[in-house]
Amino acid sequence: MVPRYTRPEMAAIWSPETRYRIWFEIEALAAEAMGELGTIPAESARVIREKGGPRAEAIDAAAIARIDEIESVTRHDVIAFLTYMAEGIGEDARFMHQGMTSSDVLDTCLSVQLTRAADLLIADLDRVLAALKARALEHKFTPTIGRSHGIHAEPTTFGLKLAGHYAEFARCRTRMVAARAEVATCAISGPVGTFASVDPRVEEFVAEKLGLTVEPSSTQVIPRDRHAAFFCTLAVVASAIERLATEVRHLQRSEVREAEEYFHPGQKGSSAMPHKRNPVLSENLTGLARVVRGYAIPALENVALWHERDISHSSVERYIGPDATITLDFALGRLAGMMEKLTIYPAQMEANLASLGGVVHSQKVLLALTQAGLSREGAYAAVQRAAMATWTKLGSAEGKSFRDNLLADPEVAGKMDAAGLDAAIDPQRDFRHVETIFARVFG
Amino acid sequence: MVPRYTRPEMAAIWSPETRYRIWFEIEALAAEAMGELGTIPAESARVIREKGGPRAEAIDAAAIARIDEIESVTRHDVIAFLTYMAEGIGEDARFMHQGMTSSDVLDTCLSVQLTRAADLLIADLDRVLAALKARALEHKFTPTIGRSHGIHAEPTTFGLKLAGHYAEFARCRTRMVAARAEVATCAISGPVGTFASVDPRVEEFVAEKLGLTVEPSSTQVIPRDRHAAFFCTLAVVASAIERLATEVRHLQRSEVREAEEYFHPGQKGSSAMPHKRNPVLSENLTGLARVVRGYAIPALENVALWHERDISHSSVERYIGPDATITLDFALGRLAGMMEKLTIYPAQMEANLASLGGVVHSQKVLLALTQAGLSREGAYAAVQRAAMATWTKLGSAEGKSFRDNLLADPEVAGKMDAAGLDAAIDPQRDFRHVETIFARVFG
Amino acid sequence: MVPRYTRPEMAAIWSPETRYRIWFEIEALAAEAMGELGTIPAESARVIREKGGPRAEAIDAAAIARIDEIESVTRHDVIAFLTYMAEGIGEDARFMHQGMTSSDVLDTCLSVQLTRAADLLIADLDRVLAALKARALEHKFTPTIGRSHGIHAEPTTFGLKLAGHYAEFARCRTRMVAARAEVATCAISGPVGTFASVDPRVEEFVAEKLGLTVEPSSTQVIPRDRHAAFFCTLAVVASAIERLATEVRHLQRSEVREAEEYFHPGQKGSSAMPHKRNPVLSENLTGLARVVRGYAIPALENVALWHERDISHSSVERYIGPDATITLDFALGRLAGMMEKLTIYPAQMEANLASLGGVVHSQKVLLALTQAGLSREGAYAAVQRAAMATWTKLGSAEGKSFRDNLLADPEVAGKMDAAGLDAAIDPQRDFRHVETIFARVFG
Amino acid sequence: MVPRYTRPEMAAIWSPETRYRIWFEIEALAAEAMGELGTIPAESARVIREKGGPRAEAIDAAAIARIDEIESVTRHDVIAFLTYMAEGIGEDARFMHQGMTSSDVLDTCLSVQLTRAADLLIADLDRVLAALKARALEHKFTPTIGRSHGIHAEPTTFGLKLAGHYAEFARCRTRMVAARAEVATCAISGPVGTFASVDPRVEEFVAEKLGLTVEPSSTQVIPRDRHAAFFCTLAVVASAIERLATEVRHLQRSEVREAEEYFHPGQKGSSAMPHKRNPVLSENLTGLARVVRGYAIPALENVALWHERDISHSSVERYIGPDATITLDFALGRLAGMMEKLTIYPAQMEANLASLGGVVHSQKVLLALTQAGLSREGAYAAVQRAAMATWTKLGSAEGKSFRDNLLADPEVAGKMDAAGLDAAIDPQRDFRHVETIFARVFG
Repeated sequence: MVPRYTRPEMAAIWSPETRYRIWFEIEALAAEAMGELGTIPAESARVIREKGGPRAEAIDAAAIARIDEIESVTRHDVIAFLTYMAEGIGEDARFMHQGMTSSDVLDTCLSVQLTRAADLLIADLDRVLAALKARALEHKFTPTIGRSHGIHAEPTTFGLKLAGHYAEFARCRTRMVAARAEVATCAISGPVGTFASVDPRVEEFVAEKLGLTVEPSSTQVIPRDRHAAFFCTLAVVASAIERLATEVRHLQRSEVREAEEYFHPGQKGSSAMPHKRNPVLSENLTGLARVVRGYAIPALENVALWHERDISHSSVERYIGPDATITLDFALGRLAGMMEKLTIYPAQMEANLASLGGVVHSQKVLLALTQAGLSREGAYAAVQRAAMATWTKLGSAEGKSFRDNLLADPEVAGKMDAAGLDAAIDPQRDFRHVETIFARVFG
Repeated sequence: MVPRYTRPEMAAIWSPETRYRIWFEIEALAAEAMGELGTIPAESARVIREKGGPRAEAIDAAAIARIDEIESVTRHDVIAFLTYMAEGIGEDARFMHQGMTSSDVLDTCLSVQLTRAADLLIADLDRVLAALKARALEHKFTPTIGRSHGIHAEPTTFGLKLAGHYAEFARCRTRMVAARAEVATCAISGPVGTFASVDPRVEEFVAEKLGLTVEPSSTQVIPRDRHAAFFCTLAVVASAIERLATEVRHLQRSEVREAEEYFHPGQKGSSAMPHKRNPVLSENLTGLARVVRGYAIPALENVALWHERDISHSSVERYIGPDATITLDFALGRLAGMMEKLTIYPAQMEANLASLGGVVHSQKVLLALTQAGLSREGAYAAVQRAAMATWTKLGSAEGKSFRDNLLADPEVAGKMDAAGLDAAIDPQRDFRHVETIFARVFG
Repeated sequence: MVPRYTRPEMAAIWSPETRYRIWFEIEALAAEAMGELGTIPAESARVIREKGGPRAEAIDAAAIARIDEIESVTRHDVIAFLTYMAEGIGEDARFMHQGMTSSDVLDTCLSVQLTRAADLLIADLDRVLAALKARALEHKFTPTIGRSHGIHAEPTTFGLKLAGHYAEFARCRTRMVAARAEVATCAISGPVGTFASVDPRVEEFVAEKLGLTVEPSSTQVIPRDRHAAFFCTLAVVASAIERLATEVRHLQRSEVREAEEYFHPGQKGSSAMPHKRNPVLSENLTGLARVVRGYAIPALENVALWHERDISHSSVERYIGPDATITLDFALGRLAGMMEKLTIYPAQMEANLASLGGVVHSQKVLLALTQAGLSREGAYAAVQRAAMATWTKLGSAEGKSFRDNLLADPEVAGKMDAAGLDAAIDPQRDFRHVETIFARVFG
Repeated sequence: MVPRYTRPEMAAIWSPETRYRIWFEIEALAAEAMGELGTIPAESARVIREKGGPRAEAIDAAAIARIDEIESVTRHDVIAFLTYMAEGIGEDARFMHQGMTSSDVLDTCLSVQLTRAADLLIADLDRVLAALKARALEHKFTPTIGRSHGIHAEPTTFGLKLAGHYAEFARCRTRMVAARAEVATCAISGPVGTFASVDPRVEEFVAEKLGLTVEPSSTQVIPRDRHAAFFCTLAVVASAIERLATEVRHLQRSEVREAEEYFHPGQKGSSAMPHKRNPVLSENLTGLARVVRGYAIPALENVALWHERDISHSSVERYIGPDATITLDFALGRLAGMMEKLTIYPAQMEANLASLGGVVHSQKVLLALTQAGLSREGAYAAVQRAAMATWTKLGSAEGKSFRDNLLADPEVAGKMDAAGLDAAIDPQRDFRHVETIFARVFG
C-alpha cells in the first residue's frame, strides 16, 4: 500500500477494524444460526450479539494492540480475536466458533472484502465508461489520422478511438462482475470442510445474511482458483488501462500534440526545464498497470495448496488483497479524471492528418485502380511508387502531393483521370460507417 | 511445441496448412459477401471459390515452400499467400481482399483457431470431470485422513477429496466457455477499423458463416484484452491441474502410499534404483502447469498496442497460441488418464488415519467439553495437553492413546466419562454430511 | 508493506524522513562540488550545508505535511522539497540543484537505498548461512533417507541435506553482492544526461562521498536494466527460501515427522483442533517467496522506458522498492530463526529409513550383480522383482525383507551368497564421501 | 520453437541428435574415469568408446525412432538410450552408467547445452555491441532532441543515445558471462548425490573434459537456482532489446521520422495500404522480448523441488531451454542487423530540434537568470511564462520564438540583454561533455 496511490474508501475495506468487525459479524451470525438449530443456547447467541456487537464496533487502536498482545502468545490471529471478544462477552462466549475453524472466519471475511472491493471497482469502471462515452460523442466526427505501427494509415475520428476503448472497458466491467461472483462464496464447514461439527444450515444462514452463496465444496478453505481468477481479471483491467494511457502518452508527444493532460495552475513539469508539460498521469498509470499485473502470478501460485489446505496463500493475500484492489481503484479513478479533463486539439489533428501529402489515401486509390482493371499487383506497385515519391520528398522544393504524383504516373493516368481520382479519395468515404460502429458500441 | 507433449488433433489446428485454409475461407466468404453486395462481380466471387477452394485444400509442403519464397521478397505473409492463390485463380483473384487488411484475415483466423482449441479443451475438461466423478462415487465413503498444513486434522473421505477437485474443474469448464466466447469474434473492418472500403455487412456475413460474432469495434485488430483474458483462463486451469497433481504426488510419497499412479509392465522408475515407482505423471503435470501459467504474462503485455495497432503481439502469439493450448490439451488428457487408472489403497488410508493414536478427534472432544461446561480456553488447554502427551510418545513403550490420556486427565474426567467420550468421538459423525456435499457438487 | 512482515531496520531505509535526508545529502554534496569548481559561490555551498543539514535532520511528520502541501500545488515532489528547504536556508538556496534534474536526486537516492537494503540482506544471508552450517555440522552423520520424487531413494545424512541448502544460499550471497554492485551508481548529469549544465566532476565527487560509482551513461535516469537485475536476484533468493521451506514442510508432515518447527509455550496450532502443531513458519515463507518473485515482472517491464526517460518506472518502484526488500529481509530473518531452532528427530529418521524393508539398497545390489556377471538388464529385472515383492507386502504376514527376497531369487542366488549381499548393502558405503562434500561446501 | 524465429546454429544445440551425442560423451568419459580407477575394466571403457562413439555419431531419425520405441516400454528416456547403445556396444555396455543416475547424464548434458547456448548469445551480444559502437561513432555529434516523457527536453546527440544502449548491452554481456558460469557445472554423484556408488574423481574427470566445474553439492540434480538465475538473465537481456526496439519504433513514427528500418526492394508494408513502411522488425523484437521474459517465471518456480529432487523441472526445461535461447539468439541477430542497416535522417533530427521555437533551452536560461540574481522561483516562473507563450502559439501568426518572448519579458530583460541570452543558449554548451561520456562508455 503506497499512501499516494490509496483512496480512503477502498483502504477502509482492508483496515484491521473492518476485518475484525466482519469477523465478529460472521461469528455472531453463525451463533444465531446455531441458536436457532439448538446446537447452542439461543440465549447465548443473543448475548454474543448484544455484548459483542458494540465491542466489535468500538474496536480501535488500543483494542488492536490488545489483540496483538494476545496473538504474541497464541501465535494464532483468530484465537487472539476470540479471546479478546470473550473478555467482553463473558461466559457465553464459549459458544462462539463452535465446530468452526479459523478458515471459516478468515475466508468468508476475505469474500466479503473482495466483493466490497469489486463493487467499488465496478463503480470506478462506470465512471471511466461515462467519461469515455461523453468524450467519444463530443468527438464523434473529429477527423484524426489512424496509425498502425506508429505510421499514418488512414483517417479515422477521435470519437472512434475512444469508442474502441469504451468497448474494452465495457468488457472489463462484464469481467469484473463475473470475478465478483467468483469470490462471493461463504464457507462455514469446519475442519477439512466435512461439516462434522457444524451443520450445513449454519453456512446457508450466514451466506444469505452476508449476500454470499455457499461454497459447494470447501476443503476447510475456499478454493483458491476463485481468487486466482479474480486477480487475473484485475490484471486484464490493468492492461486495458495501460492501453489507453499509452494512447494519451503518444498523443501528447511533442511531435504529435493532439491531446494533453490537464495542466494545473502552479504545476511544474520539471525541476530543471520550465518549459516542460509532461503526460505524468498516463505514465503513472502505465506503471500502476505493471504493479497490478504482477500480482496475478502469486495469485495463480496460490492455487495448489497441499491436501485440504496449507496456509501459504495467507501471506500472499495480505499483500495482494489490499494492494491490487487499492491500486486498481486509484488507477481507475485517475484514468477517469484524466479522460474527463483531457485537452483535445482538433486543429493539430487536422494538421497531422494532412502532413504526409495525402499518401494516407493509398488504399482507396489501389481499390479504384483494381476496379478500373489493373491487376492487384500492378496497382499496388503503382500506388507504392507514387506514395514513396511523395513521402521521401515531403517538404522539399521538388516535393509533390500524392495526388499529383499519381496523375503524373502513366500507368495510373491510363486508368483514371483527375476527377476519378478525387472521387476515389473523397474523405467522406472514411467516415460513412461511424454511426454503425457507435451504434454497436453504445447501443 | 514439444513433440512429446503434443497431441495430433490440437497440433493440427496450428499447422500452416490449416492456417492457410482458414485464410482462404475468410477471403472466399468475404468475396461472396461482396459479390452479393455488388462491390465485386458475383462471378469473380464464384471463380475465387471454385478455383481457390481446391487449391487451398491441396496446400502441402511444396506449396508452403512456394509461399515462403514469395514472402522472402514481399516480407509480408498475407500478401505472399494472396499472390500464391492468385497464381491458381487467375485474373479474378484481383477481387480478393478488396478493402480488407491483413489483420482482418489474421485476427479472424486466430479467432477460429482459438475457438477450435477451446472446444478441444472443453472436451478434455469433460473427460477429467467424468474421471473425477467416477472415482469420487467409487470412494464416496472411503475414510481417509484430512490434512491441513500437511498435519493430520480430521477424517474425511477420499470421495470428498475428489469432489472438491471435481467442483474446481467444473468451475474451470465454465471459465473456458466464457473464455471461448471472449475470442469468438470476427473483424473484417479494413485499415484502422473504419469500414472505409469494406461494407460492415461483409463482416456480418463472414462472422455468421464461421460461427463467430462481429467485433463491435476493432481498430484494425481485434482488441487483445480478449486474448489476455483467454490465456489467463488457461493459466487458472493449469493451476487447478497443479493442485490435483500435487495431491497425487503427496499421496504416493513413500510414507503415505495412499494412492499410486498406474505402473506399466516393463516400466522402469529409475536408471539406478530398480525399486523406484515414481509419481512421474503428476510431477510432469506440475511442470506443465508452470509452463502454461508463464504464458499469461506476455498475453497481458500484448494488450497495450500502440494507437490503432502495432504488430508486437504477433510474434508472441506465434508462440503462446499453439504452445499454451497444445500443452494444456496434453496435460488435461494426461490428468484424465492418470485419474482413471489411479491405484487407490483404502487399507493404507485406514492405517494412516489411525496412526496418531486418535488425536485427530480433538475438536469433537473440545466441543463436548465446552458443552459440558468447561470454558473454551480451559477445554482447549486440556485437550491440547492430552493430544501432545499422545503424540510425543507415539509408538514408545509408555505411549497411550488419546482416549486414555483424556480419561486420565482429572479436568476432563470431571466433566465426561468413557461413554460420553466415545459418543463424542464416534467416527460416524465425521461423515454425516457427505451426502449433502455430494448433492451440492454433483447435483 | 505489511506491518507483520516488516522489520524496523529495513523499513527505516524507506521512510520519507530517510528519503528526504538522502535527497538533501545529494544536493549538499553537489553544491559543495560546484562551490569548489566555482560554478556557484563556495560560501553558498557552506550555507546550504550549515543551515540545510539541521533542517533536513529535523524533518518530522509536520515537515512532511508541509512538503506535501507544497507538492499539492507544484505537483512535483523534488521541487516541493527544494522549496521547503529554501524556506529554511534562505537566499543561498537558489544555488541548490543548479544544472541538475530531479532524476539526479531521485535515482541516486534510490541507489543509496537499494545498496543499504542489499547490505541488510547480505547480513541476513550470513545469518541463514551460519544457522545452516551449524545444523549441518551437528547432523553431519545423522542418517536419513534421501528421496527423489517423494519416494525413498537411498540413504543420505541430514547434514548433507543442509549442506546443499548452504551451498545454494552461498550462491545467493554471491549474487546479492553482484546485485548490489549493479545498483550502486550515481547520476548527476542533468537533463537527458548530457552534463550540459553540470560538470561531470560534480557527479564524481558525489559518487565518491556516497560510496557509489558514476553511471557511465545515464540518460537523465540510471538505466533500469540495473534494477531489473537487482529484483530478479531477489526473486532467485526468494526461490531458494521456498526450497528450504518446502523441505521443512515435508519433514514435518504427520507421516514423516523427521523435523518440526519450534512450538512456543502457549502457541495454538488451530482454533478448532487442539492437537495441531503446524509448520506455519515454513508455509508462511512459501507465500512470502511468491510475493517477492512476483515483483520481478514489473521490474523487468520497467526497463523499456521511452527515449531518454519516462516516469512509468517510478510508481512501480514506490511499491517494489520497499516491498521486495522488506519482505525478503523479514523472510530471511524468519528462515534463520526457524533453522536455528528446528527440532530434529534422528530416531524418526532411522525409523523411516528402515520402513521399506531395505529396498532402498537396490542400486548397490544391482551394481554387485552386474559386477558378478549379470547383464545390466537382467540384474535390473531381478532386483526390481525382489523390490516390488518386498514393497507390495510391507507389513503383511507374508511380507519378507528385500534381503530375504533377493536371496530367495534363483537368478540372484546364482551369483551372490548372503555374505556377498551383506557386503554390497553395507550402509557405511553410503556415507563414505560425506567428508568430500563437506569439504567442497564449507571449505 | 517457432521456425521463423529460429537460427540453425542454436537449434542444433537442442536437436535430439546433439542431446544423445552429449549423453554418450558423458557416459564414455565416466567409463574412462572408472576404467582408470579400476571400478570397471579399462578394456570395457575402451570398447564403450570405440564401438559407442561411431554409433552415437551415426544417430539419425531412424535411430531416434528406435530409441522412442524402447522408451514406450521402459517409460524412461535414459534407460531407453542406454539399451539402444548396448545393442551396438555389446556385453561391455553393462559397465556403462555404473553407480550413476539419469540425472547425472541429463543435468550435465543440460549444462553443456546451456553453456554452448550462452557462447552463441555472447557472440550475438558482441555483434550488437559492434553495431551500436559503429553507429554511435558515426553520429557522435549528430544533434537531436533528447526527450523525457516523450516531450522535447534538451538537445543531445544521436551518438549519445546509442552510447547509452551500448553501455546497457555491455552490462548484459557481463551478466551473460556470469550466467554462463552459473550453469557450467557437472554432476556425476549418483542417487541423492552421495557418491555412494560412484567415486567423486569420476565427476572431476568428466567435468574437466567437458570444460565444466564440479557441482559442489548436487542432490542428484544440479540445483535449479542456477538455472533460474540463467533464465532471469535472459529476461534482462530481452528487456534491454525491448528498450532499443522501442526507441526505433518511436523514431520511425510518421511525425518523428528521424530513423527508419531498412526497407527492402520488393517489400510490402501493408496488404491494403501501399504507402506503408512500418517498423516491423522493432515491433517484432518487442514481442520476442515479452516471450523471453515470460520464461523467467517457470524457471523461478522450478527451484523448489521436493527433497533431493523431483522431476517437475524437466518438462519446463524441455520448453524454455530451447525456446528462450533460440528466441533470444534470433532477436539479438535481428537487432544487430537492424542497427547495422538503420537509415538515419540527421536533417529531420535538426528540424525536430528546432520545431518548438527554442523552448528546449529553458534550463540554460533559468540557470543564467539565477546566476544573474533572480531567485530560483522567480526565474522559474519567468522562463515557464515565456516557454508557454511560445509553445501555445507555435506556427500561428502571432507566434514568437522563445528568445523573443524572453527578451520581451520585463523581468528577464531587467537581468539579461540579447547578447547575454544568446551566450546562455549557445547550443555548443550542450555537447561539451560528449567526449567524456564516450570515453566512459567506449574506453
